[in-house]
Amino acid sequence: MTRKILVLPGDGIGPEITAQASRVLAACQARGLDIEVEEALVGGAAYDAFGEPLPAATLDKARGADAILLGAVGGPQWDTIEDLAKRPEKGLLGLRKNLGLFANLRPAILYPQLAEASSLKPEIVSGLDIMIVRELTGGIYFGQPRGIEEREGERVGFNTYVYSESEIERIGRVAFEMAQKRGKKLCSVDKANVLEVTILWREVMERLAPEYPDVELSHMYVDNAAMQLVRAPKQFDVVVTGNMFGDILSDAAAMLTGSIGMLPSASLNESGQGMYEPCHGSAPDIAGQNLANPLATILSVAMMLRYSLGEAALAGRIEAAVGKVLDDGLRTADIASAGKKMVSTSEMGDAVLTAF
Amino acid sequence: MTRKILVLPGDGIGPEITAQASRVLAACQARGLDIEVEEALVGGAAYDAFGEPLPAATLDKARGADAILLGAVGGPQWDTIEDLAKRPEKGLLGLRKNLGLFANLRPAILYPQLAEASSLKPEIVSGLDIMIVRELTGGIYFGQPRGIEEREGERVGFNTYVYSESEIERIGRVAFEMAQKRGKKLCSVDKANVLEVTILWREVMERLAPEYPDVELSHMYVDNAAMQLVRAPKQFDVVVTGNMFGDILSDAAAMLTGSIGMLPSASLNESGQGMYEPCHGSAPDIAGQNLANPLATILSVAMMLRYSLGEAALAGRIEAAVGKVLDDGLRTADIASAGKKMVSTSEMGDAVLTAF
Ligand SMILES: CC(C)[C@H](C(=O)O)[C@@H](O)C(=O)O
Ligand SMILES: CC(C)[C@H](C(=O)O)[C@@H](O)C(=O)O
Repeated sequence: MTRKILVLPGDGIGPEITAQASRVLAACQARGLDIEVEEALVGGAAYDAFGEPLPAATLDKARGADAILLGAVGGPQWDTIEDLAKRPEKGLLGLRKNLGLFANLRPAILYPQLAEASSLKPEIVSGLDIMIVRELTGGIYFGQPRGIEEREGERVGFNTYVYSESEIERIGRVAFEMAQKRGKKLCSVDKANVLEVTILWREVMERLAPEYPDVELSHMYVDNAAMQLVRAPKQFDVVVTGNMFGDILSDAAAMLTGSIGMLPSASLNESGQGMYEPCHGSAPDIAGQNLANPLATILSVAMMLRYSLGEAALAGRIEAAVGKVLDDGLRTADIASAGKKMVSTSEMGDAVLTAF
Repeated sequence: MTRKILVLPGDGIGPEITAQASRVLAACQARGLDIEVEEALVGGAAYDAFGEPLPAATLDKARGADAILLGAVGGPQWDTIEDLAKRPEKGLLGLRKNLGLFANLRPAILYPQLAEASSLKPEIVSGLDIMIVRELTGGIYFGQPRGIEEREGERVGFNTYVYSESEIERIGRVAFEMAQKRGKKLCSVDKANVLEVTILWREVMERLAPEYPDVELSHMYVDNAAMQLVRAPKQFDVVVTGNMFGDILSDAAAMLTGSIGMLPSASLNESGQGMYEPCHGSAPDIAGQNLANPLATILSVAMMLRYSLGEAALAGRIEAAVGKVLDDGLRTADIASAGKKMVSTSEMGDAVLTAF
């Protein structure tokens, strides 16, 4: 059965990096992977073309796809759009919400070849391998009521941080299962000393724990988690948290490795359908210059093969090809270092295809 | 006129570290500072004695004080108190709210003597000197409605993230003025691509900017700020943000220095009354062992002298004394390193008093 892949290049460096990833998809096809690849617009690009960051046609194609590959969305030219609902980010948030992509998996792995790129001391980060499981369709990102309104003679802005037991349980199970497959340690991050919504979060995590007796569950306040990531990140195996805290902590964790340009992510729904994207953003400052690192997007293809298409062997081959080009000393600007060969976005793509 | 100082030792290591700071206060008195020092209970200690984390008597004394010195609150033995309103943290939050201590100043400074203690590479953090200005009496910490309730057959937890224009303006002015006195750069951290409340935040910061033409204002999303703190923290001078983001980022920033045991903080209200506390927590694991680092609390006394008592000269002398003991190679366990002399809490206090 032919599987459908939707590629959404998005904005900024998105088109350049997804172009390289699409070449890798084509190479998989050439090796017998039965897929059909389509493209569509999302984010600022879709706003410019259709006045909407998530046009109905794009959403329809996304619904019909087995997996989605997204570049990145956003850029300064759209930051001034008055109507928040029209901003590029809403394209991304709309995809997540409409497809029910509640489970965001964000690995923070230090590539041994890039150990020097980290701003942390080598002994603190060598061998780092954390998986952050972030709830992606709830919490303060989507809570109602929200808005800006006049109250007692001045304007007031408000958002609602809300989780139901079933939402917490659902993401909790993903995290416990992930921990079972990894180092069997799960740290749930909350602010249960201040926020009621996270008291419920902690309670539900505790209730699930006996069903996963092989996993050691711990809890940490979010402020302490931010500190511990800086102080001793290797203490973590799997981390589970809500949408907002996950946004902050997963970016901090990714940056610990010094190679956020290397890190893919997956966003999955209950039926295993997934959207795959690099952890980094749209980097408007270097867009269109053939400078961006395409490896996170290429590794997102590997994650897609593994999690949504059941093609672990092919995924492994892509990962091995990426390892090879790093071993060969090829580096894009973001991970450049003395004595290594600096290459462009497309040259990096060439090299991965050659090694594949 | 005699100024009143209230010392609130609190929980965990709180009593040990405030004891050393109180000795420094007494030494100031001996040098002619006209103060009257009182103590009271707050947090878990107050709960154990009176069933309330913030007894009315403590709040009354706090209201009557010119400045407050707080150790730390909280500990595992109180984490299971069912009623959130009775937990130690509510003592702290109640003080902040009742005294209107809206401006939380959290410096993240790398002491050159302790450069090695950081988990970051020396070139990334040497000379680091950031001031985080955190709004402390609003945002999601205090927003209504909040709670856990039954909705459609399951429990739902919710909190409200809310700021009014006047609340934002008030903290914005503190931050702009702080930037004027420092490096003239202010970075406002928000999540204006997702949260309406922070769209208003950004708008108010923009509106204030023309009144402080010598300050360069920039904006950063909170996820990016967490990354930039890890990647290149020296790009920041003053950072202003809301209560929750400030909680997370100030702890991460403090940890960058590797010496969170060194960092004081101030929480000020509109009339300059202030509460001063170390950035670190109550460290229940080492409480009562004469192991804790009292320097953050002693430096909190210096901040108090500077910001609430108008005694900058005395403040400078305390800071110089702390510098001297570090130069002399004295270290508590948290900042210990090879070739330095490890000392206890009280020995560190002795040394500061000798140098003072
Ligand atoms: C672009 C933005 C809306 C998004 C988020 O906050 O979730 C991004 O930061 C991410 O983490 O994927
Ligand atoms: C103890 C806790 C309530 C408090 C907070 O979250 O504000 C602490 O983390 C702090 O930063 O002072």
